[in-house]
Amino acid sequence: MRNLKFTLSYDGTDFNGWQTQPGYRTVQDVLEQAIAAVTGTRPHANASGRTDAGVHAVGQVVNFYADTRLTPETLARAVNAHLPDDVAIREAAEVAQSFDANKDAIRKLYRYVIRDNPVADPFLRRYAAPSKHRLDAAAMARASKVLLGRHDFHSFETDWPNRMSSVRPINYLTVNRVGDYIWIDVEADGFLYNMVRAIAGTLINVGRGFWPESKIAEILTAEDRTEAGPTAPACGLFLLRVQY
Amino acid sequence: MRNLKFTLSYDGTDFNGWQTQPGYRTVQDVLEQAIAAVTGTRPHANASGRTDAGVHAVGQVVNFYADTRLTPETLARAVNAHLPDDVAIREAAEVAQSFDANKDAIRKLYRYVIRDNPVADPFLRRYAAPSKHRLDAAAMARASKVLLGRHDFHSFETDWPNRMSSVRPINYLTVNRVGDYIWIDVEADGFLYNMVRAIAGTLINVGRGFWPESKIAEILTAEDRTEAGPTAPACGLFLLRVQY
Repeated sequence: MRNLKFTLSYDGTDFNGWQTQPGYRTVQDVLEQAIAAVTGTRPHANASGRTDAGVHAVGQVVNFYADTRLTPETLARAVNAHLPDDVAIREAAEVAQSFDANKDAIRKLYRYVIRDNPVADPFLRRYAAPSKHRLDAAAMARASKVLLGRHDFHSFETDWPNRMSSVRPINYLTVNRVGDYIWIDVEADGFLYNMVRAIAGTLINVGRGFWPESKIAEILTAEDRTEAGPTAPACGLFLLRVQY
Repeated sequence: MRNLKFTLSYDGTDFNGWQTQPGYRTVQDVLEQAIAAVTGTRPHANASGRTDAGVHAVGQVVNFYADTRLTPETLARAVNAHLPDDVAIREAAEVAQSFDANKDAIRKLYRYVIRDNPVADPFLRRYAAPSKHRLDAAAMARASKVLLGRHDFHSFETDWPNRMSSVRPINYLTVNRVGDYIWIDVEADGFLYNMVRAIAGTLINVGRGFWPESKIAEILTAEDRTEAGPTAPACGLFLLRVQY
């Protein structure tokens, strides 16, 4: 059995997230079925992490074991032909037997995209969270700086059973305006459940002027989810890159 | 009654084209219903021209008569709130009583978009026609030049009853590569049915190397639709702009 690594893009809009769930359309299911259509055997596709319903990926990474003589590139081409058009394999490689896309991930980069032009853009509606009000991106950028580094992000997570600690290091966090879009880029060694979306929802409150920039430090110290802003919608979130 | 002009964007994917058809979802219907929800009376929305099922618009223009005291901008905002998220009014203005968005249109610009990276992009699948093979955009650009000017474009139209003549002047026609995308921009005083899509399907055959560049002149002279390439898919076509 060879250990193969795929890098995937998917439009999360019509998926109920990454992970197999009976009765729902998930990325894991369609990928495993497409691989099975080529190799004859359905593997377990092991992703760098789950993405939730509606969340997109530009660079999700998975590994799986398969008994095939095809080169990784040929296998990827054949599997792509069996995938629906909202998922695509971008890169393929054979990796060491021990490689584990989930456990070996050392860093992930997410981008949260907000569009703040009050006139909707029908072409981008699936790929950005809409804001009817203009946001002050510079204020959001300044306010976000306090989140950099190692902190207890309990105020920015949706509770999840069996989590050991909510201390995580954010290595990189930027807020940039690109025309009508605001990109919140967050890179960390690990993320808590809904953490980027909670950060986005909180910074949006600063961008609208509801909260002063100094409020972010208070929220962080409070270690209380109810202090932070709402979980921003899934459609704005993209898993951009996983580092190993 | 005031005569009002709206400039619309729509993602054509989930519409059965512009024009009202019983039992189908059309842009005209959803727009007229949204206007009725604001003004209390359903108007006739008169577009610059029909777009077919699946065709997109960035700058479709319509006019309609309404009895309202709202400013055009306020009316547009109110109507936008009643529109589904795949249609948006971008601009609104009050125009002279005599203005007719269909009859007064003097020129239209369409863009046909092809993506020729063999690895699909899940995010652009609705907004570009896919080509699994790389196309020679420079050859397509050179070949297209013979179509400029006033010609009988019978080889590039789907037959349509009651059409007086298939002579049309193309004022502007460019083929440009933008990364993995090829843009075919065509501006004319008037278009025949499926004309841009037939031109695109024909130029794709040149881009793939199936046909020499000189073939386009032969097709034009033949005045026979079976000589030209296939009608390229609707998802690649955008109505960009209408001039009055």
